[in-house]
Parts: sequence; C-alpha cells; structure tokens
Amino acid sequence: MFERLQQVKHQLENENVDALMVQTRANVFYLSQFDTNPHERLVSVIVFKNHHPLLICPNMEVNQVKSLFTEGDIIGYDDTENPWEKLAHYIKKSKIRLHTIAIESSLSWERLKCWQSIVPEAEFCEADTYLNQLRILKSPYEQQLLREAATFADKGVKAGIAALTEGITEMEVLASIEYSLKKEGVREMSFSTMVLFGEKAGDPHGIPGNRSLQKGDAVLFDLGVVWKGYCSDITRTVFFDHVTADNKAIYQTVQEAQLEALTKCKPGLPIAELDHSARDIIQKAHFGEYFPHRIGHGLGIDVHEFPSLTSTNKQTLEKGMTITIEPGIYIPNRVGVRIEDDVLITEGGYEVLTQFTKELTVVTST
Amino acid sequence: MFERLQQVKHQLENENVDALMVQTRANVFYLSQFDTNPHERLVSVIVFKNHHPLLICPNMEVNQVKSLFTEGDIIGYDDTENPWEKLAHYIKKSKIRLHTIAIESSLSWERLKCWQSIVPEAEFCEADTYLNQLRILKSPYEQQLLREAATFADKGVKAGIAALTEGITEMEVLASIEYSLKKEGVREMSFSTMVLFGEKAGDPHGIPGNRSLQKGDAVLFDLGVVWKGYCSDITRTVFFDHVTADNKAIYQTVQEAQLEALTKCKPGLPIAELDHSARDIIQKAHFGEYFPHRIGHGLGIDVHEFPSLTSTNKQTLEKGMTITIEPGIYIPNRVGVRIEDDVLITEGGYEVLTQFTKELTVVTST
Repeated sequence: MFERLQQVKHQLENENVDALMVQTRANVFYLSQFDTNPHERLVSVIVFKNHHPLLICPNMEVNQVKSLFTEGDIIGYDDTENPWEKLAHYIKKSKIRLHTIAIESSLSWERLKCWQSIVPEAEFCEADTYLNQLRILKSPYEQQLLREAATFADKGVKAGIAALTEGITEMEVLASIEYSLKKEGVREMSFSTMVLFGEKAGDPHGIPGNRSLQKGDAVLFDLGVVWKGYCSDITRTVFFDHVTADNKAIYQTVQEAQLEALTKCKPGLPIAELDHSARDIIQKAHFGEYFPHRIGHGLGIDVHEFPSLTSTNKQTLEKGMTITIEPGIYIPNRVGVRIEDDVLITEGGYEVLTQFTKELTVVTST
Repeated sequence: MFERLQQVKHQLENENVDALMVQTRANVFYLSQFDTNPHERLVSVIVFKNHHPLLICPNMEVNQVKSLFTEGDIIGYDDTENPWEKLAHYIKKSKIRLHTIAIESSLSWERLKCWQSIVPEAEFCEADTYLNQLRILKSPYEQQLLREAATFADKGVKAGIAALTEGITEMEVLASIEYSLKKEGVREMSFSTMVLFGEKAGDPHGIPGNRSLQKGDAVLFDLGVVWKGYCSDITRTVFFDHVTADNKAIYQTVQEAQLEALTKCKPGLPIAELDHSARDIIQKAHFGEYFPHRIGHGLGIDVHEFPSLTSTNKQTLEKGMTITIEPGIYIPNRVGVRIEDDVLITEGGYEVLTQFTKELTVVTST
C-alpha cells in the first residue's frame, strides 16, 4: 500500500480513530497522487482503520483516478447524484463502523452536517495536526520536486529581468515571465505572479498593472510555480538603470537580514529566532515599522503551509522541513524591497533551493 | 452606503438576523470590492443589522482596503495576533447583540467554533441562499465586465489557433495564449487553461502536456480570464490540417446540441430543459454515453456559480443570469469535442457574450 496511506492507517490504529477524511486539493493529492481542482464538487480520500481506503470523485474523473489510486475503492458520481448518499450506502454495505472520524479543520460546517446525517452517533476530531506533522517533513522524492520547482522560479526571475526595458509595463514583464515558464511545461504558477515597479513595490500585496518602468525604479518580482504538485516561491528586487543611496541602504538592510536568518537555519533552532534575528537587523536600521509580516512560511504542496515562521512559533526547525526566508522593507508610496529564498533544512544545516543571485543588481536596458 | 451592503442590511432587518458574515474570496469581493487571496488568513466582511459593516483583514492589506471599503470599520491584525480576539473585543466595545448570525456554507467548522467561543449563545444559519439569490442576477455594471471578460476569452482562442503548427506542444500553445492575454493586462486566468490535442481531448478533464500536434488532430481550447473580478469561460474545438468524417459527425452533433440549448434561452424557461434539449440531440446521434456532464453553470465572480444547469434543476432562467452552455462528446482515447459559450439572459431572450466562431474550423499551418 502507498506508504502514506499505511502511515495514516497505523495512526488510526494507534489513536483508535475509525476514519480520516480529507477533501482539500492538497491533502487529496498527498494521499492519492490525484491532483484536481474540484471547485464545488466533492473529491475526497477516506482512510479507514478497518477497511481499505476510498476515493470519491465525479464520474468524469474516475478514468484518470484509476491509474493513480490503486489502493482501494473509487466511488464516482454524476452531477445529478448526491455523493454523500453513495458514501452512506458504501459504509453500510461494507459494514464499516464509525465512532470517531478525523476531519480537516477547513471542512465546511455544511459537509460536517452531511457526515452527521450519515453517522449521527459519530464524534469528529481534527485531522490537521496529524496531517501537518506528516506533510511538514518532506521525503527525498518531495525534496527533489521542490528543488526542481525552485529552479523554475529562478528561471522566472531571469526571464523577468531580461524583459526589463524603459517604458515596459508591469503586466508585460509578468506575461514574459509566465510565457517562458509555461512553454517549458509549467502548468500553473503557485500564486498570482507579482511584478511591481518603483513606489508600487512599497505595498507588500501590491497588484501589477500598467505602471511603466522608469529609470531608478526598484523592480520587485515575487513568483513561483507548481511543479508535479509542489510549489516554489521566490522574491528578488533589482533596480533599473541606477540605484539611489537611500534605496541601496534599504536593499543592504534586507539582504543582511535575509542572510542572518538563512545562516541560522539548522535542525533544532527555535523557529521564532529566525524572525527575531532578521527583525533585529531591520529594527536597528530604523526600518522596523516597515517590515509588517512574518519572516516566512512552510512550502510544499501548498505555497503557504506549516511551519508558519512567526516570532511566536514555539516549534524548532527539523531536517526535511522546507521554508521560505523573506524579510522585506516597504516604504509606502516610495519603494519596497523583499528578498525571498526557498530553503530545505538538512542534517547539517540548510540547502538554499532558489539560486538566483541576491547581490544588489542594477539592470541596464540593452 | 454601497448598494449591496444596504440590500444585505435590509434583508437582515426583514429576517430578524443580527449579522451576516462572509469570508470567501468571492463574497468578500462582492460586498467590499476588495479582491484578495487570503490563503489561510482570515479576511471577512460582516454586515450587522444594527451597526455599520466591518471588514477584517491582515494589517498589511489595510492600506489597500481603505480606498475600497469606506462603509464601515476595518480591523487589521498582525500575523502574531488572533483576529477572532479582536473581533470579540470590537463586538463588546460596540455593544452589538448577536442572537442569530448568517454564515457561508463553506465556512469551516473550525471558524464556526471560533464564532461560538465569542458568542456562545448565538444561533447560526446559512447565508448562501440569500447571497446566491443576490449574486445570480447581474447588474448592468457586472454584465459589462462579463462582456469584457468574454472578449478576452475570444482573444485567447484566436491566439491559440494562431499558434498551431505541426509538432508544437499543448503547453507551448497554452503559453502563447496566456502571454497574449497577460500582456494586454489580464492578471489571472479564471481556471487552468486547457489545450488538448487529438485523443487527449477525449478526457473532459485532460491535462495539457508535451503531446505534439499532428495532422488530423482535434484541438480543444477551454479557457477564460478574470477581468476586474469577473470570469469568462469559453471552449472551442478546431481541427488541424483536415477533419475525418467521424470527427465531423461528432462536431456537428455537438454544434447542433449547443445551438438547440442556446436558442431556447429566455426568462421563464425551466433550466432543466436546457440540459434535456442538448442531451436529446446527442442521444439521438447515439453519443449519449459520451456526454457525462451537465450542460453548463452560472458564471460571475466565480467561474462556477449558480445556477447549476443540470437536468434536475427546478429553477427557471431569469433576466440578468449569466450562464455557460457547453455540451461535449468525449470518445476515450480517441477524440473530444466541446463547444461552450457564455450567455447573458436578457428580457427578450439571450445575448451570447463569447463571439468566436463555432463553425467547423480546419486550421492549416502557415
């Protein structure tokens, strides 16, 4: 049986939980290799303590699922059918007893009511803690896919820089980046690509538009791809034509903060220290109020997953975690600089997955 | 006050419900014009019966929100703060009494527990029926944005056809389509663009890859954009170099089915008849088993929204609905044809928003 399903089954035996149900895209993929965006339709994997696993999906996806999910039964349903009725029938027919069911925290209260109507006597507990504990440590296979995803992120930044020319718009640069990646086989970006010029970069969640590139602008790229189900997420900030002394000072502060946090990475380090170490440097340079977000986040099947790298996180880094390290300084309506790497925690310390240079770069039009 | 917030407030008064809370991207946008992907963070609009509305979002988005949401208060929170605690404090400070709260069906049971911890005595009811009833009918402003989104979808198909050349891969064509749209300012596709060649098109949820284009292939494009918050969704199937008699017969059946359903559209028509009328034609041509999905879906802020155009839907079409009409025939491992338009229901009948030709098209390499 697929190792992860086996791990979940063991956990259910150990905890005496009768079933674990997932229905988010990420966890369904994690437990079945089936990667789909079900929109409003139910796609679910259920692992039972005393029965083989089950996958539920729309009939039109059954063909595709059969080649991936060979570990148990598949229930298909048409748009006019209720998958919960089919599930109820399956549970009854298979004589599966369900007293305790682990479900995702994000399961909707509507779907919880469907469960309760099928098994009114069952109790529900949250499955996330356990699933996150599994997903937070990446297997060598997953690490390799994250490495490959990061390489595409590097290529995206390279394509973005190559497109910079005076007067080009943020959206035109963005289009060039995604074109270069998609024609190499990238099906999906891991989030909406960000290309921000000048004062636009001063908003950490700014939106690319028709702002055209002027000499002296900062150019902030934040992008990533989904590669075979795994995400990358890189940020680089470069300057066009020239860099002012003020902007150079901001860049160097972010760079120093990023390196400080990065070089601390190793198994056993309290995660909060990553945030503290970068924030200290930014605060000492009197930019503290302009760094309004956490130092980073876990990265894997989801572009934001555990661990969350905040100043209050009580966990320590462990070998096999993949995280982002991404301090930034944003001066509203003036300029923004962020530098972000994807980082794998290794036995001896860390491996930086994103390789694009972080040296202060001034791009000149060709 | 922004008209929609006013409508919700009136509804709360009429139904004697104390608050309505939304926290999905689509409904937050609908009620605030603030369009964001909050990932795991809480972004929410709460409309109160006896108090002005409230928007909750991460601190780093407060600046952007201020210019959009001028109808009430904004609560910002840092990554280290609990937004529910801030909400509890706000409710207490503002002396808001909450006996009944309407929430989205998709609200997670975890967030429902947060609500229950703040207002243990409150009862919860679902907000979707009412919100869908509001959202299902598009205002003239929304109709215009849907028209514009559909025009971009037409351009996407045109760019895809222009890219077709013997040996090109599905992903290369996909990259060209998205490049052409993004450099015109499209920030986001409404779903993963689909370009499928030959037998790959025989899977209604097939995945674009390295399949290269051969003479005689069907080429299925399914794509759409998000334009100022509104979605388009078009499918066209063309043939490369030549079309076999079998494929032509399939195409003509789908085309006939699509036109039959389309020309039935007008206010008052039972929605189920749309599905029946197209399915009848496909069944009479003996392809019934190869049309495994509903005839279409509503389209708006979400690419799949209400109404769902199934054979069991009891609703009727109403002026102001926007829907897709998209019959298809999929012969596994051989060929697939789907034709999909975005359609606005008008007083006199319908307006087809997607304008790209549906005549059988054979593309020859230039």
